[in-house]
Amino acid sequence: MIRISLDLMGGDFGPEVVVPGAAKALDRHPDITFVMYGQKERCEAVLAKYPKLREKSVFHECEVAISMDEKPSQALRRGRYVSSMWRSIEAVKTGDADVVVSAGNTGALMAMAKFCLRTMANIERPAIAAIWPTLRGESIVLDVGATIGADAQQLLDFALMGGAMARALFEIERPTVGLLNVGVEEIKGQEEVKDAGRLIREANLESLEYSGFVEGDDIGKGTVDVVVTEGFSGNIALKAAEGTAKQIGAYLRAAMSRTLLARIGYVFAKGAFDLLREKLDPSKVNGGVFLGLNGIVIKSHGGANVEAFAAAVDVGYDMAKNGLTQKIENDLKRYHAKRLPPIGPEAA
Amino acid sequence: MIRISLDLMGGDFGPEVVVPGAAKALDRHPDITFVMYGQKERCEAVLAKYPKLREKSVFHECEVAISMDEKPSQALRRGRYVSSMWRSIEAVKTGDADVVVSAGNTGALMAMAKFCLRTMANIERPAIAAIWPTLRGESIVLDVGATIGADAQQLLDFALMGGAMARALFEIERPTVGLLNVGVEEIKGQEEVKDAGRLIREANLESLEYSGFVEGDDIGKGTVDVVVTEGFSGNIALKAAEGTAKQIGAYLRAAMSRTLLARIGYVFAKGAFDLLREKLDPSKVNGGVFLGLNGIVIKSHGGANVEAFAAAVDVGYDMAKNGLTQKIENDLKRYHAKRLPPIGPEAA
Repeated sequence: MIRISLDLMGGDFGPEVVVPGAAKALDRHPDITFVMYGQKERCEAVLAKYPKLREKSVFHECEVAISMDEKPSQALRRGRYVSSMWRSIEAVKTGDADVVVSAGNTGALMAMAKFCLRTMANIERPAIAAIWPTLRGESIVLDVGATIGADAQQLLDFALMGGAMARALFEIERPTVGLLNVGVEEIKGQEEVKDAGRLIREANLESLEYSGFVEGDDIGKGTVDVVVTEGFSGNIALKAAEGTAKQIGAYLRAAMSRTLLARIGYVFAKGAFDLLREKLDPSKVNGGVFLGLNGIVIKSHGGANVEAFAAAVDVGYDMAKNGLTQKIENDLKRYHAKRLPPIGPEAA
Repeated sequence: MIRISLDLMGGDFGPEVVVPGAAKALDRHPDITFVMYGQKERCEAVLAKYPKLREKSVFHECEVAISMDEKPSQALRRGRYVSSMWRSIEAVKTGDADVVVSAGNTGALMAMAKFCLRTMANIERPAIAAIWPTLRGESIVLDVGATIGADAQQLLDFALMGGAMARALFEIERPTVGLLNVGVEEIKGQEEVKDAGRLIREANLESLEYSGFVEGDDIGKGTVDVVVTEGFSGNIALKAAEGTAKQIGAYLRAAMSRTLLARIGYVFAKGAFDLLREKLDPSKVNGGVFLGLNGIVIKSHGGANVEAFAAAVDVGYDMAKNGLTQKIENDLKRYHAKRLPPIGPEAA
């Protein structure tokens, strides 16, 4: 049994999307049970329409809902201990749930998750990992925007955490990991990235295979299972790719409706276009995973539709079922056990 | 008359692509004359096939050719003063050419261009500007990899230079300029980016309209005419977008050849697909512009085909014809004239 905690008030649509999304995920994974948090009247009205889901769920009333444009500091002040977002996270801390899924605003969710769950021992900064569709299947890219900048040690931590997630998600023994860098000879990349490359190579990690530097176009090719970068460039890579996908979709629609012949061709090839649309459908790949906290937090897109929210619940299910947190903890322990004891002033 | 200097030995194919590419550009712009640099036998053999081009060109023999994998430092040691790359750049310095176009390796080309042409007064760092196809037409994105990192003042310089290039390329009076940033509330972007935003706003630049922060997906939307960022994230955005375009192209080809119906549809819609292919054809948009040097340097993709190299020559032609260097100098002067005289230890 996997117990999933849900913030029913999160996202642009709240329970109207979260509840049917959860119902869809339950159809696929009948061993889920839910703990749910939200405003009573609105949530119960929707829940009543999904009796099968209702039966597998415990609902907790929370009057405070965090809005999508609230600043993290404001959300913390107003929503700590009492909001549906906070309490859905807290359920992971208290052990009432194995994982929490929220479509609420990223900044507030990260702030509350850090405050409530705290970062793991030996991890300074959490990261947001995205699941990126590639020509070879899927890859994990992190950090896509939890924090800006990262030193070599933090990038190594990202590599370890991303590697553990790849093992949980793709069920491969020793995922390949690359560091995102630029290919222009002249500049040879950021110092931190170069240092991180050395550090990861020297650490000889058992849990992953370090593949060296990769460039922006390697992500879509699926050159490695895990792409590691700091949050600024990771976020920009993700958004630039999303923008390009939308742009090409727009070109394609315009091209296919321009002439009668093209429209006839479209009718014949509709199956192919449907397949393509499915490949490009953002709702098929939804769910950023917060890594480095004492508990699994899944962030769904705020604008997610029912299918997309269900996909985020699926991700949470997989992560909990495959013991993501345990895997990360083990990998971190193995790495730190191998490190030499510190020398000098740190060796207290 | 526009005088264009060509490094015939640059790129993966050398004169076999550069020469016919130049011939193609000459067909479109009969007022071009060329100065050319390269190894005698190989170049003259190709040139002989293009008598119209030969007639408008002066050829200079250079025995040294810079290879595509040479490190910048090595290229400088071996090729300074004597290589076709160096001498084609030098032609801009001596006034024998208005612009140089090379498909040679980026690192070496930038190193030589900096060494030979020097950066403009008040510019610390050159930038590479890419012309990015968008849903609204084209935008300029810089820096896409000349240097890594940039402080607020350097980002302002990029904004000025990108704005001048937009005026030269798109012939708009006051282009809109945005700073690339991440949208997650929690982190609110790099300090330098925030500082640059303040600096640009306070500078009240006449030559451009500052539009504030933009995100990765705004590039493809064409939200602003010029997107400013430092070289690491700019390069990663560019490559991630290129990777995504290739990925979707591969999906589309696979989808359209999967079933008989799809293949029939493809035949009907062939015109539409050709149009789409043209939209996505990287050879239509080729030519990174080095900004901030005392002279215009256009970098063509190393793997450019004839059409793509001709497109890079077109870019060089437009930049020279519209007085890019002069526009940048004027904009810089106007900006620096308005700045208050320095206070404190700098005020010597």
